[in-house]
Order: sequence, then C-alpha cells, then structure tokens
Amino acid sequence: MTLLIDNIGELFTATEEGILRDAAVVIDKGRFAYVGPTAGAPEADDRFDAQGGAVLPGFVDSHSHIVFAQDRAAEFAARMAGEPYTGGGIRTTVASTREASDAQLRATAQRIMGEMARQGTTTVEIKSGYGLSVRDEVRQLNIAGEFTSETTFLGAHTVPADTDADAYVDLVITDMLASAAPKAKWVDVFCERGAFDGEQARAVLTAGMKAGLLPRVHANQLTQGPGVQLAVELDAASADHCTHLSDADVDALAQGNTVATLLPGAEFSTRSPYPDARRLLDAGVEVALATDCNPGSSYTSSMPFCIALAVRDMGMTPTEAVLAATAGGAKALWRTDIGAIRVGARADLAILDAPSHVHLAYRPGTDLMAAVIGAGEVLYRAR
Amino acid sequence: MTLLIDNIGELFTATEEGILRDAAVVIDKGRFAYVGPTAGAPEADDRFDAQGGAVLPGFVDSHSHIVFAQDRAAEFAARMAGEPYTGGGIRTTVASTREASDAQLRATAQRIMGEMARQGTTTVEIKSGYGLSVRDEVRQLNIAGEFTSETTFLGAHTVPADTDADAYVDLVITDMLASAAPKAKWVDVFCERGAFDGEQARAVLTAGMKAGLLPRVHANQLTQGPGVQLAVELDAASADHCTHLSDADVDALAQGNTVATLLPGAEFSTRSPYPDARRLLDAGVEVALATDCNPGSSYTSSMPFCIALAVRDMGMTPTEAVLAATAGGAKALWRTDIGAIRVGARADLAILDAPSHVHLAYRPGTDLMAAVIGAGEVLYRAR
Ligand SMILES: [Zn+2]
Ligand SMILES: [Zn+2]
Repeated sequence: MTLLIDNIGELFTATEEGILRDAAVVIDKGRFAYVGPTAGAPEADDRFDAQGGAVLPGFVDSHSHIVFAQDRAAEFAARMAGEPYTGGGIRTTVASTREASDAQLRATAQRIMGEMARQGTTTVEIKSGYGLSVRDEVRQLNIAGEFTSETTFLGAHTVPADTDADAYVDLVITDMLASAAPKAKWVDVFCERGAFDGEQARAVLTAGMKAGLLPRVHANQLTQGPGVQLAVELDAASADHCTHLSDADVDALAQGNTVATLLPGAEFSTRSPYPDARRLLDAGVEVALATDCNPGSSYTSSMPFCIALAVRDMGMTPTEAVLAATAGGAKALWRTDIGAIRVGARADLAILDAPSHVHLAYRPGTDLMAAVIGAGEVLYRAR
Repeated sequence: MTLLIDNIGELFTATEEGILRDAAVVIDKGRFAYVGPTAGAPEADDRFDAQGGAVLPGFVDSHSHIVFAQDRAAEFAARMAGEPYTGGGIRTTVASTREASDAQLRATAQRIMGEMARQGTTTVEIKSGYGLSVRDEVRQLNIAGEFTSETTFLGAHTVPADTDADAYVDLVITDMLASAAPKAKWVDVFCERGAFDGEQARAVLTAGMKAGLLPRVHANQLTQGPGVQLAVELDAASADHCTHLSDADVDALAQGNTVATLLPGAEFSTRSPYPDARRLLDAGVEVALATDCNPGSSYTSSMPFCIALAVRDMGMTPTEAVLAATAGGAKALWRTDIGAIRVGARADLAILDAPSHVHLAYRPGTDLMAAVIGAGEVLYRAR
C-alpha cells in the first residue's frame, strides 16, 4: 500500500530544501518514497488530501520523564502562590513511583504518549530516574522500552534520601548500571549544584559509555556549572536545559558536536528565566526543543506549546523553532532517519489545519493538528 | 430528559460554595436543577460519569473579534523576528473583511467557535470593528448575531485611512450607530493614543448608551490614558486590557462596578509586558480573563491557555484564574445566568480529564477536555 499526500499548503521539509510549495509526498512501507513537485508524483494506492494545510515532519521530543506515578499539582499551585512547599520534589515522585504497580506506570505513560501523538509528536525519548534503586530503575526502563527505543538510564537523577552523592554514584556505576545498561540506549546525569558535581557526572557518563550507552547530560539548568563543557568534552549527543551559560559554554557548544536542547516548559512551570536561544543560534550552536514532560517542573506534553514559548520568550523565529522541534531533536538523538521529510526517512508527519508552520506560534494553545502520521500509519485524524 | 453528572473529582462551582467534593449535578431543561452531595441527588433519565475529573462552569470568553477574513501570520512572523513590517495592522483586516463574502466570514467565525467549544468555552462575546463603514459594520454584527447574543458594536475600533478621528466619530455616533444599534447589545471603543482620545471615546459611549447599548471599553492597553476612569465613570461593564494602570486607575476600578478584563493572549503575541493581575486582585478589583481572539494581536481561541498565562505571568493563583475565566467573564457581560454552577443557572460545563482545575495551569498546552456541555447539551466529548 502506497500513500500519496497532496494539496499541501506548505511542505516544511526540515532539510536543505527548506519549504516547498506545490509539493507532494508518497509513502511506501513506512518511508518517504517521493518528495517533490505534485506534478511529478508517482501513482499511489491511496490518497490523503492535506486541504491546503502545512505538512511538517513529526515532532521529535528528545527529553521526557513520563514513567511515573501521581501528579504534583498541589506543589505547583503552592509554587505559583509563592508559598513555601515542604514536599520532597523529585523524591515525592520517586516514592510514589516505587509504590505503583507496573500497570499503573504503564497507564500513565500510555496516556501521555497519546497526548503527545495527538499534538504531532512521533518520536519520544523517555528517561528513568524515579526509581533510584537497581530494581526500580530497571523497572522504569523496561516500561519505557515498551513505548520507545530511545530509553535513557538516569539513575543519577537525584541523590536518594538515605545516602550521600559519592556513595550513590558508586551504586549507579556498578550494580545499577550493570542491570540497566541492557535496557537503555543512553546514559544521562543531572549535573547541578545539589545533585551531582562535575566529577560525579563524569564518573557516571564514562562508566555508562564503557557499558555501551551513549551520553547526554542535564546541564546548567539552575546555575552555571561544569555540565555543558563536560557534555561537549565527552561528545555527548545533547546538553539539556542550557539555561545558565557562560561565554565559554557557548563557545564549547559552537565548536563541538553537542546539541543544546532547550526545555521552555520547565521555565514556564517554575516561573524561571528562559534560556537565550538567540545567543546560541547566533553562535552557530545546533538547538533542539523538547517538553521535559514530568510531573514536577514541566507537565506539558505539547511540542506546539514549546514552539510558541520558544518564539515568544527565547528569541527564535517560527522557522527556527520548528526546525529545533524536528531536525534538532533528531540530531539530539543521533538519528538520521527521523525529523525531516526526505526520501528514505521514516514517514512521520504532522499535518496542520493551518496554511503555515508559523501558525504553531501565531495561534498558541490552539489545536491545529489535522492528522498525525507515524511510520506511514495514521496515528490521529481530526474529525 | 434530565441528566445526572456524578463521579466528579472536584466541583468548581465559582460561587460562594467554592469547591465541592462528593458532589453531583442534575440538569433539567438546560438548567442546573440540583447541585449538591451525590447522596442527595434526585434520579435522572440519563447519567454522565465524570470519571473523577474536575467539573467547572463553561468558560465565558467576554472579548473576541472573530468575524474577519484572512490571517496575518506574516505580520506575526516579522514582529517575532524584530523586523519592520509595513502591513497596515487592523486596516489590513478591514480591507480583507470588506472584500470577503458573508459565507467566508461565517465560515471563519464558525471554525473558531468550534475551537472555542472544544476548549470549554460556552459563551462568547463578538465585536464588530473590521467594517468601519455603515454597511460593513452592520454586516459584521449580523454575522456575529448568528453565533451569540453578546454582540458588540465597535465601529470606533480604529480610524479608517480616508478620514480623521473627529469626522469618523461623527459618522460612528450618527448613521453608523443608528444602523448598528438594533443588531448589538454593547457599544465599545478603542480608547488609546493613535485611536480615540478620552473625549472621542466618551462621545461614542454616551451616544451608544442613548441608543440603548451598554458600555464597555478597550482601555489602557498600550499606554496609561483616560480609558479606565471613563469606563468606571460611565459604569461600563468592563474595561478591557488594563495593561498600563496608574494608582488612580486601580482605585477607580476598586471603587466602581467595572470589571477589569485581562487579555494575556495579546501580550503573549505582541511580546509585551503582561498586566499585573495581582495588583488588581489585592486592591479588590473584579477581574475577568478573555482571549481577545483576533488575527492581528492575539490569535488564540483557548481559555485554558489564557488561564495558564495568567498564573505564570500575571500573579494569579489557578483558582483566581479559573474564577476570572468563568464568574469574572459573566460579570463582565452583566450576566447572572452563566459562569457559575448553581441551581437555576444555565447548564454550561467544562468536564476535565484531570482531577483538579489546577491542571489547566499545571499542564499548559495540553488538551484536558473530557467533555463540554452548553445549556445541557453535549457540545463535545473526547473519544
Ligand atoms: Zn529532565
Ligand atoms: Zn479587543
């Protein structure tokens, strides 16, 4: 079965081809078989009429924490009211996640994956980090692996209450890593004052790499610190957050291969200053956008919402923001088969009920998805 | 046919009753017939299971401009890129709206009304103001009247290119008003430097009131000016925008009956500083939230998005923001039959797939609507 998509208002390829008009795509066996002028498109078994809407690559959400139990709405409300909240932050979610059944964890992840697909996301990275024990980290990774191949071992998310950072890192890089590595593609660490310092982060990442995992880093979210330069030094795929950057951090990113993944949902939901995407782009740094979907600091699952924030508050143009949410996310996952509309790539598409990708920022909060296609299959279609 | 809604996680009444637990509502002939403990609810013909979700009054969007033709996405993109844009602002939309057929205008309004209903809005105010001629203002009001009884004559939206403000006000308060008044409930004016000054605004409002219309004012959006105090002096239902307020403006609002209607979508989409809702609430001013949905400065149709912005950027708690989007909007339209869940009120409900109203701010950009009920009819139900 081949599928022709035509009557496209704007084909946002996210490649060097840029935006094509009067273009069509043909999908065969879950891949793009043709991308080019409508007049030259081969015949196909079936046809999808985009009705003049913009057609984009499906979004690549390269940073999420969606295997967990229980929301933290009360903590959010207290924070917004400026009230002190004596909840335990991440540790609250660790406790509820440990107590939850597999079925409960699976149901939450399934619900959020559904929200994501509804909003155009066709690839999701999922981290562990709410287990913080060998058993519970592996359990989180097992469940994450039911939903994506982009699984990340984040045992070093925070230091559990009953130990100290050095002792915990010893556990993470020995028994926990040995059990987690077969279940994960990536290793990640929260390098931040109050979590893991530069040397601890280096120990986690290098041990993970020796075990065959690929590195990515939570870096410079709350303060300037060693995370970003460590990520570049280790050739990590991505340094995530990048909210507080020195000039040396920006230079390192510009000269290295590490993507700066910006997560404006976190700044939105913690009422923090946004990262300066403009500074990074102007320095030539590759930027990705992701949701950071998690119950504590960023419980949005919407890439269009993140695009709108990036344009409003981070100095990105709509085109740059959509590129960051597609090709940028793919690069942050070292994937060449997704995040762009080119022959041979996986046929992932967000088809808008709007003539241009600009509308994702111009019409914030508004549901613009006409259809979402993942690997050639229609995941969602508006009524 | 009576309808029982039960298994409600939280019943947000938007009345003195506050938030009720273990509560149910019964709807009869489009009105609430029972609001109280589930155990005491009368039998009903049909049942809707809220599945533990929060149940809120349908949102009252008391400020929109949705009868128009053509979007202004290119102007938005240029503004976000910091580029000069030589388009004509409101006048661009006036030109395209005058040229459009009734069917085109109706189709746009219908599409946006659908988006609004999908996001929980059950009452919408719609303004004219893209006609600026007797014929075209009346045409806009006729089409607005097909969608709502809350129609607003905004002939004094901007000064057309071919005249000056005084001459145009003369037209607005004579021939245009005479033709428009039978089609409208409200009269409105854009009181702002570059549009209409205090005396011109007073002339428009008092003439409208003499013709039987009720006053509301676009006031203090871009600069401090006479709009807010004029609104209070004339006992207008609402002063809308209220972004730039002097202490005297806040005092006037606190002592008067005029609601301050805040429109954060406009500040979002023009990258402007947000109004300070906290200052107004602390002074005892009644606050409403609305979308200002229009193709130039705020092309969102989403009340949940406005609630999230109000909490993030305007100092409101989630509870205050939801009250402003329901009871506040009703007061801004001088309506006692909507915006609250009480016996006798119109049965308008937003039923969430989330346990608390807090989630509207806690989960920004995420579609949380499980169902929307307007006057007892199911307008939308998630699959
Ligand atoms: Zn994270
Ligand atoms: Zn307006």
